[in-house]
Amino acid sequence: MSGQWSVDGEPGTLLPVDDRGLAYGDGVFETVRVNRGVAVWGTQHLARLAAGCAALEIHLPGLGALESELAGMAAQLGEGIVKLIVTRGGGARGYRPDPDARARRIASAHGLPMPSTRPLVVDIAQLRLSVQPRLAGLKHLNRIEQVLAARECATRGLDEAILADTDGHATSGVATNLFWRRDGHWHTPAVDRAGVAGVCRAWILERRPDTRIVHAPVDELAGAEALFLCNSVRGILPVARMGPRALPIGPHTRALMSELHDFCPAFHPAQGAAT
Amino acid sequence: MSGQWSVDGEPGTLLPVDDRGLAYGDGVFETVRVNRGVAVWGTQHLARLAAGCAALEIHLPGLGALESELAGMAAQLGEGIVKLIVTRGGGARGYRPDPDARARRIASAHGLPMPSTRPLVVDIAQLRLSVQPRLAGLKHLNRIEQVLAARECATRGLDEAILADTDGHATSGVATNLFWRRDGHWHTPAVDRAGVAGVCRAWILERRPDTRIVHAPVDELAGAEALFLCNSVRGILPVARMGPRALPIGPHTRALMSELHDFCPAFHPAQGAAT
Repeated sequence: MSGQWSVDGEPGTLLPVDDRGLAYGDGVFETVRVNRGVAVWGTQHLARLAAGCAALEIHLPGLGALESELAGMAAQLGEGIVKLIVTRGGGARGYRPDPDARARRIASAHGLPMPSTRPLVVDIAQLRLSVQPRLAGLKHLNRIEQVLAARECATRGLDEAILADTDGHATSGVATNLFWRRDGHWHTPAVDRAGVAGVCRAWILERRPDTRIVHAPVDELAGAEALFLCNSVRGILPVARMGPRALPIGPHTRALMSELHDFCPAFHPAQGAAT
Repeated sequence: MSGQWSVDGEPGTLLPVDDRGLAYGDGVFETVRVNRGVAVWGTQHLARLAAGCAALEIHLPGLGALESELAGMAAQLGEGIVKLIVTRGGGARGYRPDPDARARRIASAHGLPMPSTRPLVVDIAQLRLSVQPRLAGLKHLNRIEQVLAARECATRGLDEAILADTDGHATSGVATNLFWRRDGHWHTPAVDRAGVAGVCRAWILERRPDTRIVHAPVDELAGAEALFLCNSVRGILPVARMGPRALPIGPHTRALMSELHDFCPAFHPAQGAAT
């Protein structure tokens, strides 16, 4: 097992096997970029984690312990990724949650993924995401769909894939949110029926408040002038090819990448990416 | 932690925390009734587990170890439940599964749930199950929907709930499959878009091959003459009330319950249930 792990604040790599995170995926997680010893968007990640716990009625005793754990791990790590998991904790067999269950927190430090040296080659995934308004937006632990989609990417030799939901609406990438440019506007899928409310997505929406948040048929992407994927670990990832179609990075994507680099130097500006 | 646990055949209650079962719910499980020291429907449970692993491309090195573990735990337990979990095993951060990952197996022994002393009081759940043909039928570890539905039952004072999928089709109970009688035929939902292909359901379908396997609007249940839920731990559970409507157990349900009792005395015949 690589990296450094802790369970409920105690260093260690073992988890009680009756944890409901294992039994049912009954929990939430965050994957936080660490740059120069600091958790990037740390506040936003913790807020989303708390919101996810609230939606699932997981009683997190307070964000303080997680906050200091994240800060401590980030300081020690320097550059990399800290992953936080909060589960409903241990429990008896059976779906019914114990209203008094004590949440469990798991933190781990990891190295950075391989940086992208070129814009992405993607395609529409065959797998479609299920629609579940009660879980949409949350970064919960039920992620078999993403595992299958990632497997599909590997099989097809894709860097990432665009996922439609079962209604045919463009939703996201596998581990990323999706933006595309069309008719002079940025567009991004709504995340009220499927998908995750990404932290980098939120940052972009703040800076580009005229972005159209849409339920758009995935076919509409064929008319995109530019398209990028993003997440809080890798930043903005321009797409160079979607299926048979080549796409330019374009000035609007470059401008956003440049602003993101200014916000945090961990994220490469477009100049670093070959066109 | 109650009960007896083992991880990869070694007694113990701790799991490596990088397990993908925790990270993504990347695995499958079975809950097996044990009666007089024998796993009821053991072969069928193991077959479904293997089918689930195949569907998720989890490389189970062979069912032999699980089979002897199940038999050994059952013999020692006498009466109760053995739960088996198979995950994709440990792994690096990231959705993409390692094609060479070694599956991990977790077994645990538990006491019986409280027996039902009366027919069930149920209602249509507000929560709807998402539609995902790639996962439908499998008993995978992504079960937050069931946790939320079980929570809804507790809040509403229901014994169980009937779940429609997001298309409005009757799908299942929370931890059970669903059968209803109408126009002289048993009906049960297809499990190719949502739901689990239950082991007790399969046993019933074998004995009642004229059962109609349907995608039926959940409203159709209003016309049911009789309705029961079932699973391999609790057998056939007649429903006495669905929402405002009282339902009789009826001779057809009684006949099935009696056959199930003949098959395995662990399952109570209808005579034991108050009407």
